[in-house]
Parts: sequence; C-alpha cells; structure tokens
Amino acid sequence: MKKIHIIGLGLLGGSFSLALKQVKPEIHFTGFDSNPQNLQDALTLGIIDEAKEKADADTDIIVLATPANTLSELLIQTLDEIGSETLVMDFGSTKELLCQAVAEHPKRDHYLAGHPIAGTEYSGPKAAKADLLDRKVFIICEMEKTDIHLKAKAYEILEALNMKLRFMDPEEHDKHLAFVSHLSHITSFMLGKTVLDKMEDEKNIFDMAGSGFASTVRLAKSSPGMWAPIMQENKKNILEAMSLYISNLSKFRDKIIADDYEGLYHEMEKTNKIKDILDLGK
Amino acid sequence: MKKIHIIGLGLLGGSFSLALKQVKPEIHFTGFDSNPQNLQDALTLGIIDEAKEKADADTDIIVLATPANTLSELLIQTLDEIGSETLVMDFGSTKELLCQAVAEHPKRDHYLAGHPIAGTEYSGPKAAKADLLDRKVFIICEMEKTDIHLKAKAYEILEALNMKLRFMDPEEHDKHLAFVSHLSHITSFMLGKTVLDKMEDEKNIFDMAGSGFASTVRLAKSSPGMWAPIMQENKKNILEAMSLYISNLSKFRDKIIADDYEGLYHEMEKTNKIKDILDLGK
Repeated sequence: MKKIHIIGLGLLGGSFSLALKQVKPEIHFTGFDSNPQNLQDALTLGIIDEAKEKADADTDIIVLATPANTLSELLIQTLDEIGSETLVMDFGSTKELLCQAVAEHPKRDHYLAGHPIAGTEYSGPKAAKADLLDRKVFIICEMEKTDIHLKAKAYEILEALNMKLRFMDPEEHDKHLAFVSHLSHITSFMLGKTVLDKMEDEKNIFDMAGSGFASTVRLAKSSPGMWAPIMQENKKNILEAMSLYISNLSKFRDKIIADDYEGLYHEMEKTNKIKDILDLGK
Repeated sequence: MKKIHIIGLGLLGGSFSLALKQVKPEIHFTGFDSNPQNLQDALTLGIIDEAKEKADADTDIIVLATPANTLSELLIQTLDEIGSETLVMDFGSTKELLCQAVAEHPKRDHYLAGHPIAGTEYSGPKAAKADLLDRKVFIICEMEKTDIHLKAKAYEILEALNMKLRFMDPEEHDKHLAFVSHLSHITSFMLGKTVLDKMEDEKNIFDMAGSGFASTVRLAKSSPGMWAPIMQENKKNILEAMSLYISNLSKFRDKIIADDYEGLYHEMEKTNKIKDILDLGK
C-alpha cells in the first residue's frame, strides 16, 4: 500500500487519513476538496501530503468522502478514469441509490460501498480526529460485487484502523439508518427549532438546558450541507420513519389528553428497554 | 443549621444530601422514602443519618423530593404539621399547580418553591452523586411569598452548594420547562419507541447507535415513575409544546416530500443557532 487519494477532506475523510498515518506512515496521501479553505486546512493539518484534483494512476485506494448527493456522479466519473489496480470506496451515509447508479458500470468490481458509523456534530477538516473511527462499525454493502484482490486493500486498511466490519444489503442499510441515524437528526433539529421559535430569551434556554435538552438537541448543530443531501438520497425510508414517529407522538399526546396515567407509564417503561440495547457493548 | 429532613430519597434528594454533607458536616440528616429498599439504600450510602417518617419539631429545613404528582398533598400535610422555625422546600419539576394548591395555606410563608435544574437518566439513591447539583441553576418561584427569615436558611444551603439562583413566576417556569425539558424527554422516548417497534434485530440498533442515536435517545432511559407525573402536572404546557413540535415535523416532512432542498438546508441552518446558545457558558 503506497498511495491513497481522498476526495472530500471533511470530518470523515480527514479523520480517516489522520488515523491511518499513525499506523501506516509509509502511505502517501493526496487529496482534493472543492472548498479551497478546506483544501488548505487539510494540507496545514497534515491530512494530505499533496493537493491534487485527480489521483495518480498507481493510487491504491481512492476514498470518496463528499456529501451524499454528489457521490453517484463522482463515483461514475472516478470509475471511468481509474487504473486497473485502484479500488474506489465511499463513506456515504446512504447506499441504495448509489449502488443502483453503478450496478451496470463495467468497473463495478473496483468499487466497495462503505459507511463508517462515526461522526460528531462538527464538520470540516478542523473537526477531524485521529481516534474518530477507532473501534467503530464499518458497514459494507454488496461486498460480493467487489473484486476479491482489490477488496483485500480495503480490509488491510480497515483492520489497521480497528474498525468492526458489518455486511448488509444497500436497501437494508438505508432503512436501518433512516431509523437509527437520520430520524435522530431530524427529531433533534425540530426540537431545536421548536424551542428557538417559542422562547425569546436565549439566556433562559441556556439556564435550563441542563435538564436533558443539551444532549437531545446536540445533533441540531450538524451541518446542513451534509444532511440536506442525506434527506434527498434516503427520502423514501426517512418519510416512513417520520410517519411512524409522528404517529407515535400523536398517540402519546392522546394519552396525555385523556389523563391516561397508566398508559403513559407503561409506554415509557417499555421504551426503557433501550437501556439494555445501548449497554450491549459494556 | 442543625437538622434537615428529606422526604423522597432518590437521585435529587440523595445528591442534595451527599453534597451538603461535604461542606456542612455538622448537619444531622433524617429522611423517609415510601420504598423500603430506597430507604435502606439511603441509610447504607450515608444519604441520611437516621430514618424517620416525620421530621423532628426543631428541623430547620424539610425537603420534598418525591414525584411531581405527590407534592401537593404532601406539601399541605407537611405545612399543617411543622413548627414555627421550619422551612419546607420542594424539588419538583412543575410549579404552577403546586403553588396554587398552597396559595391560601395559613403557613404559605413557610414554603419555598424550588426546582434544581439537574438530573441524569438514572434514578434512585444509588444514582445520587455529590457533584450533581454543583454550579447548576436552582429556580425559585414566588420568592416574595416566603418569610424572609426562613428564606435565609434556604439561601445558606443553596450557596453552600454553589447553585445559581434564578427567579420566575410558576406559570413562566412550567411553560419554559415544558419546552426545554419535558418536550426533550417525550421526543426521546418516542424516538426510542419508533426504533424499537421497527427494528427487530437489537444488535443492528446497537451497531448503528454511534451515529448520533445514543445521545438523542438517552433520556428514554428515564424513570416512568418520575415522568408520568410530570406529564400530568404540566399537561397544558406540554400539549402546547407537542403541538408545535408535531407541526414543525410535519412541515419539515412536507419539504422532504416536495424535494425542497433549499428549504431543508435553510431550516437546518437557522436551527444551527442553538450552537451559540448551548455554548453561552463556555
């Protein structure tokens, strides 16, 4: 492994490089970002060793870490141009439309559809951290469609990063992520909006934020440039998740209206089960 | 200050005592909990020095730290019985109905309506921590209705705990808390429920929980025994907050349906303002 090229030098692309440089210092990192400031920051922070728009022909892996709605076009264009020994992988949060877009591409077997389950509410190369991906889950979709020799390059890297591999259909991936990740972001954004709309005195919001609000609204700090594209790309599943969520909220509201104390208690008690699931890893 | 009696030896009552014992070791703590296990744990953990159902006549402060829907009756009964030098304060999450319930009580001036803005998703005496209240906000309602000499006892204690005092009408308090605290708990519980209902494989939920879900759903671990009463007591304001929240969600869903990318982007960008508010204290 000698050369890696990263397109999109934000939180994920940057954290990927910083981590890998610690364990594989021999790799030469090139990269590009359409935002000149991000490109400059990535050079300054040592995320890439050299800025260039196109990967060298002998690049081992090209990583696409740009917003979800840019990936299909970028992936097709990248596959069109790459050499015979180059693997392309992406870090996109949605997989179904992307896998469909390249299903018939003559170089489909040069592509590995990936999604690291890691992130923070911050974005850009300055938010990148060498330990962001450590011990996190990396989902691979349609792994059987990637050439076995090229795939080995990805495994070498992901293992070096201590990532835990999971395998899933793109459809299954997008559906699960709509519920566990995308819905969380929407509920958080809408909570933030509701509170901002209603409470004029910001000092009051801050003073009371200790009461659980801060963690519940944390994701409302997230980048619109990352999230508006995800809502576009995973529209179908996100709409389903939102419908169920709104329906659950409405039923809960009906219980409050009806003074159904037992019903409210029971509903919350059942949901406490989430505790066991979140503690699985402990 | 020689004696404090605490009724309700859970997270808040317990943390209050543990913190105060560090700075005022001379105080003798008595207390009671209707749950025998909690009472035993509170003794074992040193939260109280002595278990007794009724406070001694020369008790300086009686703290009521039981669920919100039990407070009115308990407060009236306590005021009926206390001596002339005893202050009663409560830690309830709702204030309007409670202040109404004792508005005409002959010993109204023995009562201080309080609410410490602190908590975790855990409950019971074993969850109590000596630093839970440190530097947190303590809201006092109708402070002018408490006798000035008795009030001084509360200030002495709250100052010793490094708490930051804020003053508010009970109506204003309940309205703000509905938006900043109670709504957060409901959105979190319903997020947990939606994900549990939909995803059968709990391992999948766990694996993907890194993607922001864990923090957004954290409050769904909270105690139904604490929260069902709050929903009862603050029904009017919680219903208003939920209506606005559901309406915001529906409008956001409409933007996704309409592929209104600009609208989604703009809505999230505006809500990013929450970042500045949450960072006010930094």
